[in-house]
Amino acid sequence: MYKIVLMRHGESTWNLENRFTGWTDVDLTDKGMAEARHAGKLLKEAGLSFDLAYTSVLKRAIRTLWITLDEMDLMWLPVKNDWRLNERHYGALQGLDKAETAAKYGDQQVLVWRRSYDTPPNPLTPEDPRASYGDPRYAGLAREQIPLTECLKDTVARVMPSWDEEIAPAIRAGKRIIISAHGNSLRALIKMLDGISDADIVGLNVPNGQPLVYELDADLKPLRSYYLGDADAIAAAMQAVASQGRAK
Amino acid sequence: MYKIVLMRHGESTWNLENRFTGWTDVDLTDKGMAEARHAGKLLKEAGLSFDLAYTSVLKRAIRTLWITLDEMDLMWLPVKNDWRLNERHYGALQGLDKAETAAKYGDQQVLVWRRSYDTPPNPLTPEDPRASYGDPRYAGLAREQIPLTECLKDTVARVMPSWDEEIAPAIRAGKRIIISAHGNSLRALIKMLDGISDADIVGLNVPNGQPLVYELDADLKPLRSYYLGDADAIAAAMQAVASQGRAK
Repeated sequence: MYKIVLMRHGESTWNLENRFTGWTDVDLTDKGMAEARHAGKLLKEAGLSFDLAYTSVLKRAIRTLWITLDEMDLMWLPVKNDWRLNERHYGALQGLDKAETAAKYGDQQVLVWRRSYDTPPNPLTPEDPRASYGDPRYAGLAREQIPLTECLKDTVARVMPSWDEEIAPAIRAGKRIIISAHGNSLRALIKMLDGISDADIVGLNVPNGQPLVYELDADLKPLRSYYLGDADAIAAAMQAVASQGRAK
Repeated sequence: MYKIVLMRHGESTWNLENRFTGWTDVDLTDKGMAEARHAGKLLKEAGLSFDLAYTSVLKRAIRTLWITLDEMDLMWLPVKNDWRLNERHYGALQGLDKAETAAKYGDQQVLVWRRSYDTPPNPLTPEDPRASYGDPRYAGLAREQIPLTECLKDTVARVMPSWDEEIAPAIRAGKRIIISAHGNSLRALIKMLDGISDADIVGLNVPNGQPLVYELDADLKPLRSYYLGDADAIAAAMQAVASQGRAK
């Protein structure tokens, strides 16, 4: 039996400001850093350890991982940064206030953008300074690999090769793995692991900074999964994610 | 022409306490963290950037690197942790106070242990709790690869394969590299790069937290090398290293 841990980054500055973030490289808040420290404590108390860590190329996930590893006295752990674990690209919404956007376009339209499986927000224009062309962390990619917007289906399509080519073979090789990533890249993994439908995955909310343990069988099928830590705190954190993006 | 940066970790708790550290995994002091931040600022101001970082499996070097990368907005940079870049193993001296050891054995004997090229301090016994057997970060190594003591010559012998097999090929492949390591693993690299004799290398002191730039030709021979930052501060930092290990 294998065991892996998925963890969404702690609260970011734009979670706090209720803005659409996507590939924008915002940092953690103090609360987000405290969440990461708490996650490290929970993992240590649960007797878990790791051989290898995966994360995105966005600092809110990387810092969450660093703080967690520091707390576990595992700073030396090999870390693989994979752009394919980035958050969903939010297109032209990146940087906009969620509540203002909802007031302007209506709760329903924002819910479609946030939660439709296959309807992306409007793309950034290639000239938009928010586009990621020219960013050194994506320098190894072909231009057409760098998104200007994504729906969740697009995110799933880019996350899956990271699982198939990198993460799953490492698990089968016996590596104990932690993945520090983002709401939608983790949804992509959870959808695949639990066989959740396109319709149902949009209703699943991944709370910030809560370690989610999957126990997997020899075929990497889940035997069970559970969040570490206090059930009430996790329910509250999930509800907080669900209620973002409503007009105030 | 290639350019690489070598950097010794910032001040550690045992630098401050004047104790022999070696493979003991002590952390940075507040001053050490400030040195790392300053190093990141200097590197950014010098217009340097990197594609890949190497460090040891010891947290004082890793944290120095993390803080430096954070300061440069390069947290996403791939990092390779290589035990072969660890500090020289200090054998039975690990944990002892340098000045007390000098008072007990004499300045001259301590100078031999610290600065002889080929005389190691007494080894730890295999049963000593300070020995690194069983530490998960060395789990992939054969037992005979894990030292119980080292002279500088031994450190050179284990650092060089890391250069030959990993770092030099990456430089030739065009990667811009920063190495965050330790006084003696950096001495090993400097000895090789500058062709310093066994006799002379023991007189060379590498200051904490000061980025050392090497410009290399196509054969990876140095064209020139220089510390970034204030010359007086660097001279003072070198002197501070040189005068450790004397009876007070």
